[in-house]
Amino acid sequence: MSEVHASRRARLRERCAAAGTSAALVSRPANIRYLAGWAPPGAALLLAPGGDVLVHPRPTAAAPHDGEPPRDLRRVVLEGTDGDPVVAAADLVRELGADSLAVEEHHLTVVRHRAVASVAPGVRLAGLGRAVEQLRLVKDDEEIAALRVAAEITDQALGELLESILVGRTERHLALELERRLVDHGADGPAFATCVGTGPHSGAPRHVPTDRRVEEGDFLTVCLGADYHGYRCEVGRTFVIGSAPADWQVELYDVVFAAQRAAREALAPGVACRDVDRAARQVLERAGLCEAAAASTGHGVGLEIDEDPRITPSAMGKLDACVPVTIEPGVHFPGRGGVRIDDTLVVRPVADGGPELLTITTKELLAL
Amino acid sequence: MSEVHASRRARLRERCAAAGTSAALVSRPANIRYLAGWAPPGAALLLAPGGDVLVHPRPTAAAPHDGEPPRDLRRVVLEGTDGDPVVAAADLVRELGADSLAVEEHHLTVVRHRAVASVAPGVRLAGLGRAVEQLRLVKDDEEIAALRVAAEITDQALGELLESILVGRTERHLALELERRLVDHGADGPAFATCVGTGPHSGAPRHVPTDRRVEEGDFLTVCLGADYHGYRCEVGRTFVIGSAPADWQVELYDVVFAAQRAAREALAPGVACRDVDRAARQVLERAGLCEAAAASTGHGVGLEIDEDPRITPSAMGKLDACVPVTIEPGVHFPGRGGVRIDDTLVVRPVADGGPELLTITTKELLAL
Repeated sequence: MSEVHASRRARLRERCAAAGTSAALVSRPANIRYLAGWAPPGAALLLAPGGDVLVHPRPTAAAPHDGEPPRDLRRVVLEGTDGDPVVAAADLVRELGADSLAVEEHHLTVVRHRAVASVAPGVRLAGLGRAVEQLRLVKDDEEIAALRVAAEITDQALGELLESILVGRTERHLALELERRLVDHGADGPAFATCVGTGPHSGAPRHVPTDRRVEEGDFLTVCLGADYHGYRCEVGRTFVIGSAPADWQVELYDVVFAAQRAAREALAPGVACRDVDRAARQVLERAGLCEAAAASTGHGVGLEIDEDPRITPSAMGKLDACVPVTIEPGVHFPGRGGVRIDDTLVVRPVADGGPELLTITTKELLAL
Repeated sequence: MSEVHASRRARLRERCAAAGTSAALVSRPANIRYLAGWAPPGAALLLAPGGDVLVHPRPTAAAPHDGEPPRDLRRVVLEGTDGDPVVAAADLVRELGADSLAVEEHHLTVVRHRAVASVAPGVRLAGLGRAVEQLRLVKDDEEIAALRVAAEITDQALGELLESILVGRTERHLALELERRLVDHGADGPAFATCVGTGPHSGAPRHVPTDRRVEEGDFLTVCLGADYHGYRCEVGRTFVIGSAPADWQVELYDVVFAAQRAAREALAPGVACRDVDRAARQVLERAGLCEAAAASTGHGVGLEIDEDPRITPSAMGKLDACVPVTIEPGVHFPGRGGVRIDDTLVVRPVADGGPELLTITTKELLAL
């Protein structure tokens, strides 16, 4: 993998050169992981004319999914608890032949930025913007392969839950069980805090599981995902508990399902992100559910569970091929509940068969 | 509780006035929770002459431990996904009668700080420093009561684990089981990612659990803690797996235990934090374990699991009464393992009986 990371760093270096800065200091963990293949907590990555350097505290014994320390990259290991690797990296800028430095102003705090400036007097500081996030948007084959495995694990964990008895169990216990199953099936961990909402909590985005127990007649919304080799996916489903759903449940479910399908079908290279959002939102609006609809229809996934692009009404930009996104419209009525249906897909041109669905758990309304 | 929060805000307002700023914008979640009793994700809290305002996105259905929306505080709820509450709060500064604003420069990124400045032209921006963190150092009776419950839950979860069969189980499964037990006993969640390290991973600080299975003869280090009503504690123990520990295990354990006791006994109001660190470190040095010792001996706990004060060789400042801290010296040899013993205690004067031990799980070397 190290050539992959070296070539990513070369692309970033080109962007910096084009913007007129001779060095870049990357501090956001997912960006470091992308460029170096390894991001021990607190690390900073410096790209400079005299060579690239990864500065980090002495790492603790780590899990395999943290990646491997890069062999082709100079490393500086800080001892003790007091040095900031970002500042230590900035301290190397001059000796590595740079007189200007682009930093991640959307990640560095004001205090750290000031500390960087003070150890690099005479070095012109500039903003790197979201250059690394932009490089991360379009995934290569290996990244998509990791996402496929993450989705497979996620589907397995969810599938097993559906075979067990749910009535009487609390949201928290179901969430913990799902996370255990993710790990059983080979996940390095959950991609995000598993969300289980039942009855009045169903359909709520990012609901934090409570001690409420699953009851007959409830909607049950479950949202989970695996982290596999750093890559994170997401699946969300809503079920009915009991022998048969009520009419209002079937009606609500059908609308959200139609909205989700419309957004999935809108996914194609060149399509504006906001148009994908609109495809889902129009279906909900026609059913009079506009007020109860979630603010966001989806987002990119990769080394972070919530990354660019945004699929929202005000999102800028267009989709590209090989961009993995979630499509997760939802409707929630406070005190009553709702429905959420969430898939991870990869944007593909029609010639390649259209969007690739990674999470294949059924979207029929199951009565459990 | 709302008078408690109002009086905390009054104290912060006094500090700002003394520093010559008329308003404060708090963005760090634990600081908002401390001052308002409730911190929905992404919130910002503005204290201004014309009144205090909590600005936040519409919150999702949340778990009880997120606290209650404050009744005595004006709230502004942002809809959609795009507005930054920090910026929206800064936008209110002038109409609330302030011409200067102190912000948390150690929390705000450069980009957000710039956005604050641009919506508040003519308002002088200053640094709030770690003023709220300083207020949070000394805990009141209710805060300590919450920590006591958190510690009790943590001891229960750990005690149950010790009664089960450990050989053959993986670090990950033991960590997940401990987290489930924490919730079973009433925790709102784990206070931090549970750390289970066995064999060569034992004693390593912040070890991320792997698929390694517990074997006969291993050292097993477990570190966990409950979050109860937002307050977080920590316990860490090292055990031996099998009928009897080896001589080297007993020797190593005895040294770390002596170091931990020395640091616990050094805890008193007015003692320099670095002297507490030194008390533990000298014991390890005399045994020739200086190189293998952890960089930090402990830290404060409260609304965050790792907060001020620091108990490290270079820490500044002295301890006060009613400050809860961890004492957690450890020794780790890469490839071989080690020992870590970790308690949460509250600093108390000798007249009150000295340090109050919250985590009471035995520190005998158990063979399990």
